[in-house]
Amino acid sequence: MKAKIVSEFLGTAFLVMIVLGSGIMGQNLFPGQVGLALLANSLATGAGLFVLIQCLGPISGAHINPVVSLVEMLWGQIDRKLVVGYILAQMAGAYLGVILTHVIFQLPVFQLSEIERLGSHLLLSEVIATFGLICTIALAGKKHVEFAPMSVAAYITSAYWFTSSTSFANPAVTFARNFTNSFGGMAINHYLPFVAAQLLGAIVAWVVLRAIPQT
Amino acid sequence: MKAKIVSEFLGTAFLVMIVLGSGIMGQNLFPGQVGLALLANSLATGAGLFVLIQCLGPISGAHINPVVSLVEMLWGQIDRKLVVGYILAQMAGAYLGVILTHVIFQLPVFQLSEIERLGSHLLLSEVIATFGLICTIALAGKKHVEFAPMSVAAYITSAYWFTSSTSFANPAVTFARNFTNSFGGMAINHYLPFVAAQLLGAIVAWVVLRAIPQT
Amino acid sequence: MKAKIVSEFLGTAFLVMIVLGSGIMGQNLFPGQVGLALLANSLATGAGLFVLIQCLGPISGAHINPVVSLVEMLWGQIDRKLVVGYILAQMAGAYLGVILTHVIFQLPVFQLSEIERLGSHLLLSEVIATFGLICTIALAGKKHVEFAPMSVAAYITSAYWFTSSTSFANPAVTFARNFTNSFGGMAINHYLPFVAAQLLGAIVAWVVLRAIPQT
Amino acid sequence: MKAKIVSEFLGTAFLVMIVLGSGIMGQNLFPGQVGLALLANSLATGAGLFVLIQCLGPISGAHINPVVSLVEMLWGQIDRKLVVGYILAQMAGAYLGVILTHVIFQLPVFQLSEIERLGSHLLLSEVIATFGLICTIALAGKKHVEFAPMSVAAYITSAYWFTSSTSFANPAVTFARNFTNSFGGMAINHYLPFVAAQLLGAIVAWVVLRAIPQT
Repeated sequence: MKAKIVSEFLGTAFLVMIVLGSGIMGQNLFPGQVGLALLANSLATGAGLFVLIQCLGPISGAHINPVVSLVEMLWGQIDRKLVVGYILAQMAGAYLGVILTHVIFQLPVFQLSEIERLGSHLLLSEVIATFGLICTIALAGKKHVEFAPMSVAAYITSAYWFTSSTSFANPAVTFARNFTNSFGGMAINHYLPFVAAQLLGAIVAWVVLRAIPQT
Repeated sequence: MKAKIVSEFLGTAFLVMIVLGSGIMGQNLFPGQVGLALLANSLATGAGLFVLIQCLGPISGAHINPVVSLVEMLWGQIDRKLVVGYILAQMAGAYLGVILTHVIFQLPVFQLSEIERLGSHLLLSEVIATFGLICTIALAGKKHVEFAPMSVAAYITSAYWFTSSTSFANPAVTFARNFTNSFGGMAINHYLPFVAAQLLGAIVAWVVLRAIPQT
Repeated sequence: MKAKIVSEFLGTAFLVMIVLGSGIMGQNLFPGQVGLALLANSLATGAGLFVLIQCLGPISGAHINPVVSLVEMLWGQIDRKLVVGYILAQMAGAYLGVILTHVIFQLPVFQLSEIERLGSHLLLSEVIATFGLICTIALAGKKHVEFAPMSVAAYITSAYWFTSSTSFANPAVTFARNFTNSFGGMAINHYLPFVAAQLLGAIVAWVVLRAIPQT
Repeated sequence: MKAKIVSEFLGTAFLVMIVLGSGIMGQNLFPGQVGLALLANSLATGAGLFVLIQCLGPISGAHINPVVSLVEMLWGQIDRKLVVGYILAQMAGAYLGVILTHVIFQLPVFQLSEIERLGSHLLLSEVIATFGLICTIALAGKKHVEFAPMSVAAYITSAYWFTSSTSFANPAVTFARNFTNSFGGMAINHYLPFVAAQLLGAIVAWVVLRAIPQT
């Protein structure tokens, strides 16, 4: 059990370093060119996420996302008691990730984000993004399980571009975003609406997947 | 059977969201830089298409394309009666996809495209693009079936660049393009010629594949 | 045998369409920005080459390259008589590819390239590029043969960038380049030196691979 | 044993050609646009590294990195006596790589880098980068070993962007960087601090992996 918690903790820390660090690098190297920053950000995130799931999947399932842990609990794949530990580890790891990112990029360590991401269209975008993520996790490994990590990674790379919110779809990473004013940041007043949208997307996915037998 | 129809419906909706949504995001973030928009569009489409085929292949075959359903019928892989349901689900899903895309990007929901894509060179491009797509579907999984989804996705990513029409190759997605003035749109008067070219490419592929025993 | 020849013919035609077509699209969409054109060109080539090897490998071995056919003959993997047919099919397919590319991009169909690519450093670059290609083909499938197509594709994508000649490494595609003034073209007076360098690289690879037992 | 040494020698030579060559090509084609040069550099490095590990893994383990050889020794995967030969081959190969790269790009063959990369934040970045690399090597193949080469390659592509030092993480490649003033170069006075940071990251990874049973 210790290994599982450490895996979720370090995994989420690395996920946040990947998401926010590559965003900062993009922002530094492409000043004023948000599109190119997002291109680098989305490719680095996809590549890094693939590695995390490939490496940590056999240890803890590589949820590195509280919404995924909750759905895995509904699917009976993880013990109810363990879920609390997973989510705490993910939130703590996410915070460690934002701190380390700021340190290695020589930015102020403790920040409160002031970046606005307002609008119901962004919330619907998060519902769709998380719906797709949960469906991907449920279905991608049905036939060729060895391609499941790549599928989840490819989904996120794609969803950075096809959703208007750039697909946060993860309450732990969303939490970390509240503490940075860099490329991937978001002011904390948007936290609860975004998480609510993510939970809603996950629940809709769970209902649809349940209603439709997949074979 | 219900699962198959839902799979084709939701799969085509997501395919359209991926194709058109990433085009809009590219257009927004790369104003006046069509090449960079297409780069993001092609990478996001490839990544997303891979996920769709990986996830929905075991359920419905992941045709998400009427031309593919018709050829699968010729190959005896799908019942003639089911084909009608598949195609209706794909067309309806495609329309849902364009609506959702407009909503999450805060664009007018109902649009009629005015984007011209005129010229017999574009139609020949569609013949070649669809010929290649059908050959890929027929051959990519012969030896290592687990790489079939990635092959189809890689084909489309490549064909966005090596064909002058950017490889629509799908009458359902082409249909959805008639209802958007964004990056991937096309005026409806080009619909029938494009679909005719796509059908022609598919038929040529079917004939060639039939004439040449593949082992 | 007919299927093998058709496979090499159509495969090389598509390879040339992919290489030259994506170069033209890049040139059109990134005027004056050679780097971005090469980025699109290298990604489209890698993705397309992967599909060709994945699809045609089980039929003809997917050489789609005379140098590869010659080395496969030295390795005893293909009959000496068949090699002549393979190479003729590859050259004819390459020429068809450049014609079709010009047609779908509305360019003059018959062109003679005037693009200079002069210098012994480029020839050494071709030696190294082809050495690496032959080693990749020899070694990539030793343990996990299902990743061989992706390995060859990834090699070429990488070699577009790490060699100064952008890694032609293929006498059939090099031949086709003599007949286009677009992005990937090359004046015909450089043809023989380039092919000599490619053959030299292949021979060095064959010697090194033979001297070193690989297990 | 001869094959193993040759494999590490040529593998590291190619790795340096890939890393530095694609950097030079990027610099040439994207003058003054460091971000786009890094984008091409990171994609070419990932693609090329995948091929090297895929091809040379079955021969020598494809360490092509002294830090990896040392950790493999600690894990008992490689004989202590062989490690010296591996590291010498890697250093010699790295030097050959920088020479060949300069020749094919028509640059002065012998250079001493003057590029400054100063700061403790870069050293911490190298600690994290190497920590992640060793963990990836340890864990990526636990369940689906065939995806290990792609995992290591994807890790490096991602780490080019999410670490502020662009993730050297390899004392042999770092050595080669001291002899070029091109994109990937670094003045030799930073060599020892960088290598110390890389060793520290590897040791921390080794300790963490040892403390946490992975199943």
